[in-house]
Amino acid sequence: MRKILSPRRQKAGLPPGTPIHIGEADGAVCVTVYEYDQHQWSERTLNDPEDLRVPDRDSAVVWINVDGVHDVGIVTRVCERFGIHPLVQEDIVNTDQRPKAEEYDGYLYAVVKMVRHSADAETIDTEQISLIVMDRLVISFQQRIGDVFDPLRNRIRTGKGRVRREGADYLAYCMLDAIVDHYFILLEGIEGRIGPLEEAVLADPAPDAMVTIQALKRDLLFLRRSLWPMREMIYRLSREGAAVVSEETRLFLRDLYDHVIHLIEILETFQEIVAGTMDIYLSSVSNRMNNIMKVLTIIATIFIPLTFVAGVYGMNFAFMPELEWRWSYPAILALMALVAALMLRFFRRKGWI
Amino acid sequence: MRKILSPRRQKAGLPPGTPIHIGEADGAVCVTVYEYDQHQWSERTLNDPEDLRVPDRDSAVVWINVDGVHDVGIVTRVCERFGIHPLVQEDIVNTDQRPKAEEYDGYLYAVVKMVRHSADAETIDTEQISLIVMDRLVISFQQRIGDVFDPLRNRIRTGKGRVRREGADYLAYCMLDAIVDHYFILLEGIEGRIGPLEEAVLADPAPDAMVTIQALKRDLLFLRRSLWPMREMIYRLSREGAAVVSEETRLFLRDLYDHVIHLIEILETFQEIVAGTMDIYLSSVSNRMNNIMKVLTIIATIFIPLTFVAGVYGMNFAFMPELEWRWSYPAILALMALVAALMLRFFRRKGWI
Amino acid sequence: MRKILSPRRQKAGLPPGTPIHIGEADGAVCVTVYEYDQHQWSERTLNDPEDLRVPDRDSAVVWINVDGVHDVGIVTRVCERFGIHPLVQEDIVNTDQRPKAEEYDGYLYAVVKMVRHSADAETIDTEQISLIVMDRLVISFQQRIGDVFDPLRNRIRTGKGRVRREGADYLAYCMLDAIVDHYFILLEGIEGRIGPLEEAVLADPAPDAMVTIQALKRDLLFLRRSLWPMREMIYRLSREGAAVVSEETRLFLRDLYDHVIHLIEILETFQEIVAGTMDIYLSSVSNRMNNIMKVLTIIATIFIPLTFVAGVYGMNFAFMPELEWRWSYPAILALMALVAALMLRFFRRKGWI
Amino acid sequence: MRKILSPRRQKAGLPPGTPIHIGEADGAVCVTVYEYDQHQWSERTLNDPEDLRVPDRDSAVVWINVDGVHDVGIVTRVCERFGIHPLVQEDIVNTDQRPKAEEYDGYLYAVVKMVRHSADAETIDTEQISLIVMDRLVISFQQRIGDVFDPLRNRIRTGKGRVRREGADYLAYCMLDAIVDHYFILLEGIEGRIGPLEEAVLADPAPDAMVTIQALKRDLLFLRRSLWPMREMIYRLSREGAAVVSEETRLFLRDLYDHVIHLIEILETFQEIVAGTMDIYLSSVSNRMNNIMKVLTIIATIFIPLTFVAGVYGMNFAFMPELEWRWSYPAILALMALVAALMLRFFRRKGWI
Amino acid sequence: MRKILSPRRQKAGLPPGTPIHIGEADGAVCVTVYEYDQHQWSERTLNDPEDLRVPDRDSAVVWINVDGVHDVGIVTRVCERFGIHPLVQEDIVNTDQRPKAEEYDGYLYAVVKMVRHSADAETIDTEQISLIVMDRLVISFQQRIGDVFDPLRNRIRTGKGRVRREGADYLAYCMLDAIVDHYFILLEGIEGRIGPLEEAVLADPAPDAMVTIQALKRDLLFLRRSLWPMREMIYRLSREGAAVVSEETRLFLRDLYDHVIHLIEILETFQEIVAGTMDIYLSSVSNRMNNIMKVLTIIATIFIPLTFVAGVYGMNFAFMPELEWRWSYPAILALMALVAALMLRFFRRKGWI
Repeated sequence: MRKILSPRRQKAGLPPGTPIHIGEADGAVCVTVYEYDQHQWSERTLNDPEDLRVPDRDSAVVWINVDGVHDVGIVTRVCERFGIHPLVQEDIVNTDQRPKAEEYDGYLYAVVKMVRHSADAETIDTEQISLIVMDRLVISFQQRIGDVFDPLRNRIRTGKGRVRREGADYLAYCMLDAIVDHYFILLEGIEGRIGPLEEAVLADPAPDAMVTIQALKRDLLFLRRSLWPMREMIYRLSREGAAVVSEETRLFLRDLYDHVIHLIEILETFQEIVAGTMDIYLSSVSNRMNNIMKVLTIIATIFIPLTFVAGVYGMNFAFMPELEWRWSYPAILALMALVAALMLRFFRRKGWI
Repeated sequence: MRKILSPRRQKAGLPPGTPIHIGEADGAVCVTVYEYDQHQWSERTLNDPEDLRVPDRDSAVVWINVDGVHDVGIVTRVCERFGIHPLVQEDIVNTDQRPKAEEYDGYLYAVVKMVRHSADAETIDTEQISLIVMDRLVISFQQRIGDVFDPLRNRIRTGKGRVRREGADYLAYCMLDAIVDHYFILLEGIEGRIGPLEEAVLADPAPDAMVTIQALKRDLLFLRRSLWPMREMIYRLSREGAAVVSEETRLFLRDLYDHVIHLIEILETFQEIVAGTMDIYLSSVSNRMNNIMKVLTIIATIFIPLTFVAGVYGMNFAFMPELEWRWSYPAILALMALVAALMLRFFRRKGWI
Repeated sequence: MRKILSPRRQKAGLPPGTPIHIGEADGAVCVTVYEYDQHQWSERTLNDPEDLRVPDRDSAVVWINVDGVHDVGIVTRVCERFGIHPLVQEDIVNTDQRPKAEEYDGYLYAVVKMVRHSADAETIDTEQISLIVMDRLVISFQQRIGDVFDPLRNRIRTGKGRVRREGADYLAYCMLDAIVDHYFILLEGIEGRIGPLEEAVLADPAPDAMVTIQALKRDLLFLRRSLWPMREMIYRLSREGAAVVSEETRLFLRDLYDHVIHLIEILETFQEIVAGTMDIYLSSVSNRMNNIMKVLTIIATIFIPLTFVAGVYGMNFAFMPELEWRWSYPAILALMALVAALMLRFFRRKGWI
Repeated sequence: MRKILSPRRQKAGLPPGTPIHIGEADGAVCVTVYEYDQHQWSERTLNDPEDLRVPDRDSAVVWINVDGVHDVGIVTRVCERFGIHPLVQEDIVNTDQRPKAEEYDGYLYAVVKMVRHSADAETIDTEQISLIVMDRLVISFQQRIGDVFDPLRNRIRTGKGRVRREGADYLAYCMLDAIVDHYFILLEGIEGRIGPLEEAVLADPAPDAMVTIQALKRDLLFLRRSLWPMREMIYRLSREGAAVVSEETRLFLRDLYDHVIHLIEILETFQEIVAGTMDIYLSSVSNRMNNIMKVLTIIATIFIPLTFVAGVYGMNFAFMPELEWRWSYPAILALMALVAALMLRFFRRKGWI
Repeated sequence: MRKILSPRRQKAGLPPGTPIHIGEADGAVCVTVYEYDQHQWSERTLNDPEDLRVPDRDSAVVWINVDGVHDVGIVTRVCERFGIHPLVQEDIVNTDQRPKAEEYDGYLYAVVKMVRHSADAETIDTEQISLIVMDRLVISFQQRIGDVFDPLRNRIRTGKGRVRREGADYLAYCMLDAIVDHYFILLEGIEGRIGPLEEAVLADPAPDAMVTIQALKRDLLFLRRSLWPMREMIYRLSREGAAVVSEETRLFLRDLYDHVIHLIEILETFQEIVAGTMDIYLSSVSNRMNNIMKVLTIIATIFIPLTFVAGVYGMNFAFMPELEWRWSYPAILALMALVAALMLRFFRRKGWI
């Protein structure tokens, strides 16, 4: 069973706002800084967070990407460089977070779940992305190296699309958009798992189909748990919105909101289809039982009476006149054949054979 | 299984607002322009979108109909002629869209699903219609040639009804009305599929009934997914409404809104009826099993004891005095008949025969 | 299956606002006019709608009742006499309408479903009533001659109650009240059908019980579909209300609203009870199966081993010393009786007999 | 089945506001008047409602209690003495009312359901209480003599608590509080019925358990139908409140509101537990079936092959050499024992025995 | 069955606001007073509540912790020392309370459920905590000695975290935070119970699995009943908030609110998973039945016809020519073997073996 809760026993009792990493710790830690404006771009890997500085209003847009939140030290040093609230720091390193967006003084904090299919396409790979959006700055925190932002990075490098012409809020939107697009791809993959399951269930209702169905149900539950709060969060950003989000970007967020709604509707359709698959499974099992019982009943019902007749003439009474008659034996055999034929006709009329 | 999601893997990573066709590409592309006012009308097929112009306030109403959104080039050229936002262009060519209406500066964008029964009346044929409504102009984008607007075209040609007397908003309403009317026809067809299914399920609970039920369920889910957002969209148009919608047309939209509500209620009733059909199916299967078991039990229960009795008198013990008695054989036969009669009475009292 | 949708294929493509009769056409058409004030009353059958006139502010209250909306000509002539909007005319003759109330300039349009038990008390007889309420005028349109308003007519004739002292809004309220009262009577009838069903299902779970349950479910679904919009409609009339509804009448409508809420709650209770009846049915079927299996198992389990023993001593081996012993036969019979007794004790301990 | 609807056929067609008693008529009619202030109290039984008078602002608080609303004459005479609206009078004598509170000019009308366990603690005894609250006056109407207000009466008599120091609104609150407290006691009783049911169902899934479960479900549905509108009603009184309710009493009503919410949550928990009991029941039935089938299968599977072997050596062929051998018989018996042992091992491995 | 309702029969009829202890009374009573500011802290156990005094605006923060609310005398004396409303006193000693927060004049009253796993980790230990928050004072009432606040006490003693720098509202927040953290730990424990259950159910669907599932369901229902009102309560404190809650603390409460939402979502996921476990259980039972029936059918279907054949040649007719033939016996045996082989092939084709 996929773990739904990460253990947080160590956290209980600590003062609120203490950043403690919750979740699995894996891989190296890496801080990358991208800087771009309409005319130029640069990217470099950083060793010392102390080198970071707050960009001013007219400077290029800066995107700081931190891979590996299990190194609490790096996270807090980056955060403190930009005056981020301790509660936000705590949330960044706790990878068991619910998607949400919160406005703080001078910046916006958003946390979402990035999902991808794992290599074997059977399980969902999930990673928590925290975004801090300031006037000309986006800081993103990821659990691991590797993400869905490579096409976005290419667009920044090549200057394709409008990302180089827009501010930090548009960059953050592009990141959310890339994450939402991968939900679509994930749902396509799930649709690809539902189809064969349904056919398998009809053809041969094996007991492990139930397990597969339950696994699908849980994946859908997990996605629902990620998408519903994202819907709420993007809605809030697109309507009331935060100070750092421009009017134009809000139009794009509204479009993104429609995508999330669409995702949720597809998700709910999948849930109903999976529930329907379970109904098919259960009725297949019943039908199988019916067929087994039919075979048993037909065989037993034909032969039990015949065996009785044979038994009667196997009795050893001294005075059984039929036994001596010349044509008794063929007559009895004929009688038996007749009984069997009548039985078969009865079953045919019942539609059993 | 009907595909619920169109593949959009190619789209992931592209800049937002890039129009990429999503869905099946079929058929020729065709742009038709209709122009009419109270006194005259004209219609022509267009080759070069550059010939299109924005109608002014006093001119005739113009309806530009584009069949075949898979030709992204035509769509973008038409759209750019009228200054349509890139996000709208992206939505027009993505045929996997959720019905919605959005107001932009100077125009209204609405997208709905047009549904019809396919030729064999068993599957639902669906097509996405995008409408752009301006002051004296409606642009409609369709996936394929062929639609539900022919009666409307005839009304424009003959001047029947009020369409020639009203503006572009009324034309758009008429198109929505025609689309909604076809939902009613579709639901009639579905009602026609539910009726026989129910009888079939009662008469003979075959395993494929379950498959038919699931297919019906999915069609209803699909229609629900189309109708619920349409309801919301038409509500918004009819109440708060967009600037391009006149007061009088709003009255008609309010009426259309009632139709959509009615459709949804009928749909939900159908969903409950189909669920009920599944209950009937499952209970029919159980009843069948009961009947099979009854036959087996009656036969076995009558003949097994009799066979035992016959078996007893088939034993070869040297000292079995009954075997020598004169009337043993008929007495035993009589006893057996009595036992069978008692058993039958017992079953009749139980109500099994 | 009761038809849920009336065919409207002929309607598709017609201009909105074209009155086309949808539904069954039956019976004669009849227009009756009642006029009354505190001091006098008159009633007459009308031949020519041209004779109708708009009552002025100080005149008596006029109630025009039209039976038979399938005569579209009469309906449109009456409506046009009083300047009724084409959309309303269209709704009046379409008997497949959702209950609603709409305010137009100078009048209020309300449409509800009048229900009664049919003669055999097993099916629900439904008729659509449209009401147009003006300052001193109520026009009612019915599908057939015969309605639930006779006690109201008597009260007008005899001057009992306050109807003669009040205006047209109170008359319309009285009509709604009479319709709602019949829902109570209908629900009583349905309660009368649920009771015996429940007992029948417990006593003998026949397969047709399922059909009866489904029929009940559908009747309840139908009533729900009628009552929910009525609730909304009466709420709106009683609170925001239309201009033609006086403060005093609103108090009565508020009371009527409570009745409808009560009806809906009872309806939902019935739905849960019917669902419970289905559970009882299904568990009865299971219990039956259990009982059948118990009988089979008891009989087979007792006699199959005994038959085996008999079979052993029916073997024809040359050297079976027991066969020659004097007391073998009675001993074997005693052994058999013992085995049967032990089996019976085992079943009694299991609680099967 | 408990009747959910009281017959109201006689009521259909009567003018709205005509008080007609609906429900069972039982017992004597009795009007009692209590008068108290901080210093004194009196109580007397009244014969003629004409003796009643409206208390003035400075006088003692008056509580008029009417037992037996089936005497419509008494009710209307009491009501008319204080100028109560005809619709309220109609509601008082209709004991099939939905809990609600309505503010009229100068008084507040509230109707609730008082519940108690019947003597045998298996059914719910319900009675409708109508309260009319004026400035210094409470009139309560009950269906029968006997209620849950005796402790309140004692507090008035002895001056315990704050009731003698407060106004009529506090008295009405105390009555509602006593009624709500009895819902708690009732739910305790229901919890006492659920516990044994659950154990019974596990131990022996008798078919009548289903009936008991359905009865419990209905009792819970009934309580829900009483509590939900009470919740709404008390909420309204405690927040927007009526003019006759003081600020201080509102604090108490807020507390009472919390009690009702708590009751509803417990009720819903009970509903889920009862639904769970049904699941246990159904799975117990299935398990029983499994056990029965196991016994049958074990017996049949062991003895049917053995019987076959015995049958083979019971054949009368002239040339069956084994029959003549010396050790055939014991060898066959040993073979049979071996087959039986293997079968038993197979069943043990399957976990059936 | 865990008791859901504590008996409150003794309470019915008492004046509202009378403090009566409801719930189990256990353990000693103990009043502890903690006093701290940024520079110092003290703690002492108190004998006489009369020694308590209201702290003034500039004094240290005072936390009075009362263990054991069954001593109504102590509770009322503490409360009256600080002028707490009688309704609050009544709620403190009634341990069957719904979580809520209420603002009174000058203080805030909050009641929550503290949960922990019992020693055997199978049942949930629950305790009601009442908090009264004033300007520089928190009074907490607990049912028993022992709570989840020890880490908080340590932080006060050692001055770790910000608790010593903040006011009484922050202290109350820290207590709520500690309580909410323990819900996470509890849910982890429940996840640990769900996992093995699921595997057990698949491996061997024993009837007591159903009981375990129901117990889990109830624990989840109980937690839901605790968490939902807590959600509402913390929401209210964090947004509209009470006068005693500072802006800064509200930020922390907003974070706590997110935790509670997260808890609820996890809880609902667990509920769906447990429901899925039940489905697996039921389908496992069905599959078992199928397997049992298959074994029975295979054995019976093979041997019943063979036994019949043997029976035929066991008949004692005088004229059965086959009996005398030399190769009849081996031929019959061969025939029997053939029939058995054909049957086995048939079963293999059906996929039964």
